Amino acid sequence: MSVKGLLITLEGIDGSGKSTAAKHISSQLQRIMPERRLILTAEPTGGEAGKILRKRLSTPDGTGSSPSKRMEELFLFMADHADHLARLVGPSLEEGAIVISDRYADSTAAYQGVTLQGIVPDPVQWIRRVYAPWNMTPDLTLFFALDPAIALKRMLSRREKEKFEQLEFLRSVNENFRQLASLEPGRFVLIDASRDAQDVAAQAMKRILKRVQSSW
Amino acid sequence: MSVKGLLITLEGIDGSGKSTAAKHISSQLQRIMPERRLILTAEPTGGEAGKILRKRLSTPDGTGSSPSKRMEELFLFMADHADHLARLVGPSLEEGAIVISDRYADSTAAYQGVTLQGIVPDPVQWIRRVYAPWNMTPDLTLFFALDPAIALKRMLSRREKEKFEQLEFLRSVNENFRQLASLEPGRFVLIDASRDAQDVAAQAMKRILKRVQSSW
Repeated sequence: MSVKGLLITLEGIDGSGKSTAAKHISSQLQRIMPERRLILTAEPTGGEAGKILRKRLSTPDGTGSSPSKRMEELFLFMADHADHLARLVGPSLEEGAIVISDRYADSTAAYQGVTLQGIVPDPVQWIRRVYAPWNMTPDLTLFFALDPAIALKRMLSRREKEKFEQLEFLRSVNENFRQLASLEPGRFVLIDASRDAQDVAAQAMKRILKRVQSSW
Repeated sequence: MSVKGLLITLEGIDGSGKSTAAKHISSQLQRIMPERRLILTAEPTGGEAGKILRKRLSTPDGTGSSPSKRMEELFLFMADHADHLARLVGPSLEEGAIVISDRYADSTAAYQGVTLQGIVPDPVQWIRRVYAPWNMTPDLTLFFALDPAIALKRMLSRREKEKFEQLEFLRSVNENFRQLASLEPGRFVLIDASRDAQDVAAQAMKRILKRVQSSW
């Protein structure tokens, strides 16, 4: 008897409660269906390209803004994503696991869709086209929708200062997430991330349970 | 008075005498025009993504052959190339230097154009399209054309065993280089790499001098 794997991704700007929800969801799912293999993962990963990205995101230095450096960053995200598929996502889905990823390819389309404005034509669509032939498409993507001004306020109170955290930048990223959601309405589900953390996690859990149960 | 930079790339399969010619050319050029700034470089570079690639190429392990791993490799080459442009090629050209690169984007199109068969549609063209919006196009590309059987014989006598060195693989790579050259006949010049190392270097030097002098 083979169980079909299920790939669920959580997307949205930082401060939207994604990561908290991911932990909540995975522990609840594990309790509800202890027999099902569950993988909680995230991008960028801890792989070779992912490590380079994590280091850069945690030490904003004001450099890295030339067009070529932005392209390098895009391809590091893509290399990390491909490595993620090869090492963990692909094999886990083949074994029938539920894979929950905190960020996935849509984050690259949304974020680099902003940083690559004026460098490649129509960046969100350009990035989607580069992913298209080889990506593993999620069965369900929860988009944690939140006013970037609120997200920024939450982030500042956490004292995390990654380079992507300016309001205007986040507004553009958020618009890109909305565009991505509108392009694939069957895959994306909107989560109202303006509520408190527990409520956001509960909404996410409800949508995931619905999807998991329908796939049995 | 500003001198226009010049970007010259050397392409071809391993064993074609590219790297020997590159050293020969750069020392001769430096002697002929000591006032001109000259940069000799190579891909993969010693940058962050380049280091990952160099390590993998020097330790063939039989893994890394899943479709996702091959995509990862492509994007690491692209990240390294973008980093190369940002760190060295772009700034050097702006300062009016002659930049000679032992391998450049065409190598990725030719080699990954083979490894990605069946993974992306028409890989050589697909890779070219991904490079198109952001790459810096060489002013001149020397293609060191050589029968892969001869290249392989030379390589084996050097006891270098990188994973790309099987005859059939090299034949396909060579075909891709020929295709690339036919697509941009104004940029590519063919070097007969079947001759001995000194003669190959002399041919290359002659073509480069012609180009350098015409750009004065």
